[in-house]
Amino acid sequence: MNSKYKTIKYKQNKALDIEDLVSIEEPLEMIVRYKKKNKWIKDSISITMRTPGDDGSLMVGLLLNEGIINDAGEIGNIKKLGKKVGKFNIQNKLQISLDNIRNLNIKKLRRNFLTNSSCGVCGKTSIDSLEVVCKTKINKDIPKIKNELITKIPDLLRQNQSEFSKTGGIHASGLFDKNGKVLVIREDVGRHNALDKVIGYSHLNSIFDTKNQFIACSGRLSFELVQKTLMANIGLLMGVGAPTSLAIDLAKRFDMTLIGFVKSDSFNIYCGENRILK
Amino acid sequence: MNSKYKTIKYKQNKALDIEDLVSIEEPLEMIVRYKKKNKWIKDSISITMRTPGDDGSLMVGLLLNEGIINDAGEIGNIKKLGKKVGKFNIQNKLQISLDNIRNLNIKKLRRNFLTNSSCGVCGKTSIDSLEVVCKTKINKDIPKIKNELITKIPDLLRQNQSEFSKTGGIHASGLFDKNGKVLVIREDVGRHNALDKVIGYSHLNSIFDTKNQFIACSGRLSFELVQKTLMANIGLLMGVGAPTSLAIDLAKRFDMTLIGFVKSDSFNIYCGENRILK
Repeated sequence: MNSKYKTIKYKQNKALDIEDLVSIEEPLEMIVRYKKKNKWIKDSISITMRTPGDDGSLMVGLLLNEGIINDAGEIGNIKKLGKKVGKFNIQNKLQISLDNIRNLNIKKLRRNFLTNSSCGVCGKTSIDSLEVVCKTKINKDIPKIKNELITKIPDLLRQNQSEFSKTGGIHASGLFDKNGKVLVIREDVGRHNALDKVIGYSHLNSIFDTKNQFIACSGRLSFELVQKTLMANIGLLMGVGAPTSLAIDLAKRFDMTLIGFVKSDSFNIYCGENRILK
Repeated sequence: MNSKYKTIKYKQNKALDIEDLVSIEEPLEMIVRYKKKNKWIKDSISITMRTPGDDGSLMVGLLLNEGIINDAGEIGNIKKLGKKVGKFNIQNKLQISLDNIRNLNIKKLRRNFLTNSSCGVCGKTSIDSLEVVCKTKINKDIPKIKNELITKIPDLLRQNQSEFSKTGGIHASGLFDKNGKVLVIREDVGRHNALDKVIGYSHLNSIFDTKNQFIACSGRLSFELVQKTLMANIGLLMGVGAPTSLAIDLAKRFDMTLIGFVKSDSFNIYCGENRILK
């Protein structure tokens, strides 16, 4: 989603009145509904800024990443609440009903969102705590991909982004099969949101086949993006930007493949290089 | 802070073993200490991922932005807690003592950090709630600056970033005087952290003279970055990247000047163009 804004463009000392397309950022309040002692309870768990569109996937992706739900089968109805608000006339409240949840830990629900996805107080404890969450370690059948495919990914991401060419200010994440076929691409002003949308969508539509797929992101690779990829059981992550230390350490611990600085003629492999075919 | 990581660089189908400098990302646990009924209480309020370095400024900036403290005079001792941990051997806990706090609202303390700086459920309520927080609206004596200065800012930011040239993966924010003199620049893997560090440092060292200063950021301009600038009472913000809709709407409401897509020969003014001199 984008909107026109009147803007003055200065170029070589000349001022021009233009209309600029700007990516929309609006808050989303996320509400879960669950049964406790035979009563339905509603709980507002988080407010996050996002680009409206596919909010259901965003919230499902977040719940999966936080380990609140294990798969899309645990959820029931997804519905927007409240009236349409604001200048863009959209609903900014979303409720997911946890109808079939196996082990709902309310404290965890609150704590996880409170601490903004970090689990410990040093990199090592952050990674250790993920080992607890990831009861089953990541699938070791991570696909092997050709190095010439990797350099094509930035173009594939861009070509399938509907918003970036308009606004120049939106991130993308995508799920690809091992031959480079685009399975789903989502955009958002928040890097993490774009990835949550991809993961949530893939669960809701049962398109995950993790042995044969990888994820690519338009930006830098932080701990949180590797964590989300790991929680989705995808073993290969690449990004156009730089990885952080903790992103690399986490990928190494779970024997993932992590590739950064992907350009049209080069890229850097930080770990899991045995899966890159010449 | 950065660290060397062994990496395989693919370039034009050739694989080279290299050592890549990577920006460090580690969690920081933030603890406040305050008096309640004559007893000192410690409260862990948030864990955030950051690049270690100037953690005190980061946490002071966050407390200011959230409206927990009004100025640096309200805080007492800032100290690191716990032992040095992890592979980089650093302390990841920081405690700030709220010795002279005037009105401590514990619920607000918790709620603000819980909701990740968003206050409402639509853009309008998010902006409205800031009007309540910003008891005094922003200083209207916002500096006027020359358009030729603006195009120099991206280079000035980069030249004063010690880490970017090494790792290629770190954001920067800076406080400048109206003539373009660099007052403080901070870097962090998190865009928001870099700005929090600049604002916290400027408060701790009493270098704010908001009538004559502006802030510049290396990335995109989200609602949260405009909010932080507003809470610091700075009226002019520019960034190398695109603004979001809510960033522009917030800047307009408080009559700030917001400039995006700043390049060496062009930039876009989204509002407050009367302060840009030809």
